[in-house]
Amino acid sequence: MKNQPANSRRDFLRSLGVGASVLSLPLSSYANDQYTRNEASGLYSLNTSQPGRKLGIALVGLGYYSKNLLAPALQQTQNCRLAGIVTGAPEKATEWMQKYNIPKANVYDYKTFDRIADNKDIDVVYVVLPNSMHEEYVVRAAQAGKHVICEKPMAITPKECQNMIDACKKANKQLAIGYRLHYEPFTKEVMRLGQEKVFGPVKFVESSDGFRSGDPNQWRLKKSMAGGGPLMDVGIYAIQGARYVTGEEPVSVTAQFAPKTDPQKFKDVEETMFWQFEFPSGAVSNSTTSYAAGVERLYASCEKGWFELAPAFGYGPLKGRTSKGPIEQPVVNHQAAHMDGVCKDLLDGKKLPDHITGEEGLRDVRLLQAIYQAAETGKKINLKA
Amino acid sequence: MKNQPANSRRDFLRSLGVGASVLSLPLSSYANDQYTRNEASGLYSLNTSQPGRKLGIALVGLGYYSKNLLAPALQQTQNCRLAGIVTGAPEKATEWMQKYNIPKANVYDYKTFDRIADNKDIDVVYVVLPNSMHEEYVVRAAQAGKHVICEKPMAITPKECQNMIDACKKANKQLAIGYRLHYEPFTKEVMRLGQEKVFGPVKFVESSDGFRSGDPNQWRLKKSMAGGGPLMDVGIYAIQGARYVTGEEPVSVTAQFAPKTDPQKFKDVEETMFWQFEFPSGAVSNSTTSYAAGVERLYASCEKGWFELAPAFGYGPLKGRTSKGPIEQPVVNHQAAHMDGVCKDLLDGKKLPDHITGEEGLRDVRLLQAIYQAAETGKKINLKA
Repeated sequence: MKNQPANSRRDFLRSLGVGASVLSLPLSSYANDQYTRNEASGLYSLNTSQPGRKLGIALVGLGYYSKNLLAPALQQTQNCRLAGIVTGAPEKATEWMQKYNIPKANVYDYKTFDRIADNKDIDVVYVVLPNSMHEEYVVRAAQAGKHVICEKPMAITPKECQNMIDACKKANKQLAIGYRLHYEPFTKEVMRLGQEKVFGPVKFVESSDGFRSGDPNQWRLKKSMAGGGPLMDVGIYAIQGARYVTGEEPVSVTAQFAPKTDPQKFKDVEETMFWQFEFPSGAVSNSTTSYAAGVERLYASCEKGWFELAPAFGYGPLKGRTSKGPIEQPVVNHQAAHMDGVCKDLLDGKKLPDHITGEEGLRDVRLLQAIYQAAETGKKINLKA
Repeated sequence: MKNQPANSRRDFLRSLGVGASVLSLPLSSYANDQYTRNEASGLYSLNTSQPGRKLGIALVGLGYYSKNLLAPALQQTQNCRLAGIVTGAPEKATEWMQKYNIPKANVYDYKTFDRIADNKDIDVVYVVLPNSMHEEYVVRAAQAGKHVICEKPMAITPKECQNMIDACKKANKQLAIGYRLHYEPFTKEVMRLGQEKVFGPVKFVESSDGFRSGDPNQWRLKKSMAGGGPLMDVGIYAIQGARYVTGEEPVSVTAQFAPKTDPQKFKDVEETMFWQFEFPSGAVSNSTTSYAAGVERLYASCEKGWFELAPAFGYGPLKGRTSKGPIEQPVVNHQAAHMDGVCKDLLDGKKLPDHITGEEGLRDVRLLQAIYQAAETGKKINLKA
């Protein structure tokens, strides 16, 4: 926790409603790492002789997630820092420049964005825009010669995902999706419990994520911008959960829309829906996502026991238990852990792990589309390649 | 707890793996009640001047549930006692007569059963046979002039249920179904939380019940005897859960069979299945039942919070929590509470509460059939009358 204002993490957790008792838990080891320069690649790795080298991140889109989660997290990161912003709102630019000491030269709007190519301060562009804009800004960031992090869902269609993957490959830059939970210790532990069959093979997963959506005018309720409703937004976590505790890819899916209780608010997208996956091992999952009801749990039933996270997908702290007792893990800032983890590999010149890349984002977007197709047709959709 | 061997409840709970810490919790008030003779009806009610009057129960079928749950519970009941048995196995008859001091005159086999009409010791016949035999033995018990308790599911078809209801009505005897949880304090508390909208209206219920089934030769895996698989056996609890926390009857259902991972064992019945209810208020539920995976939870998401039981449906002790903290309730012996509750109303000459009668059993059997129909056809089944 050194090199960081004493209260920043505390304040951040307080802002999430996290009590003081949690703060006494140890942070995961990433927070104390240092960097080493890799002489071959010219990039920096942890345990360095040149401590303090941090990748510069520019946030594209300064909505809730950037303002309340990413920017505060970037005050705690060891491998990256908030170096620039891209916004269409001049008043936001002024506010952020002052608050985070961002030089004017590192502030862009959507017209001037491509000039970011010439900015040596910016190593990574983090796209935090509505889903329908992900493709354009990831492609433009790659063409500007930057590594890219893109929020989930990666895009609305598989074709967009493929274009994004191709653009990054062509630019020889890496593309990470905002799968923060892959760097979160409780989540990593349930991945291990499931994939290493600690309680025997996983037989059934109940994985659901939903909340009561507020503002009826938000872009997340517009199909043209979001691509769908809660499934696109938080259902994707339930999909990820079923995939990462089984360690398998589903081979078929059935799905159902619930009736809309507020047809005006949800005229464009689903309000609540359900889906069921089958996996090659015979494991099955049943999931719910909703903008009308709060639910957040990942439960895995195995041959010789069970484990669960509840809450399982939110910004933390997560909480878990197994048929043998509670899951004990360090509590981390999810966003800081994610950006630090991605940037560590970028500094090391390493290929990002497959499960957080554009290829993984594409797999999820294919599943999102298959779930909608299953619900619309009432048919079981075969997912085998 | 007076008038009962000091260790019987303790031993019983130990046999269920319940630790000593639980035993310090208070029992619900039913255990200390006494009876009063109702001069008009001639039946006995609680707070009596004739303490000790207990209805005589005959158990029909001496399988696992009778042997391990009902008979031990009947050593603790205040309003009823184990008075007779009906079994096709002479060696079981001998064992039970000795163990529970049952006179030979109160022991019947399936041929002599109807003579129970002449036995003044027997007030209530409890049918604990395979599902396919419920109708015959409930009808015969009613014709013998006895009140009847029948294990869940009430029967395999609605027509059987109706015959059972009609037979009891014709005999002017009451019919209760083995819905023990309606007398269980944690369950009654979640009924209250949901039905009284303590956290606002219920929006979504996740209600699942399953376990890993053992013996491949048991009658529960034979469709002709069980009527189906885990849905008939434990899925019915998940149905009940969704109904009693909403306090509503579903208006439609969709359902899906999971693929069979052991097609030999489950050649006759489903191995795992899912279903989704819609309720008139717009509340929805999503459920799983399984003979391949352990799962046991009732979660209700409301407008202003949530509550859950986990475990929710087993023989106890149940455990619950809400968005405001843990649910604190006395731990009771489920089977004793159920039989005592039913027998109290019988002693009082009161009509049994609707939610534990044959009419309730019929509602569930209709839903069981609709769920199978929905899964078989892949169509949403309309349940409106």
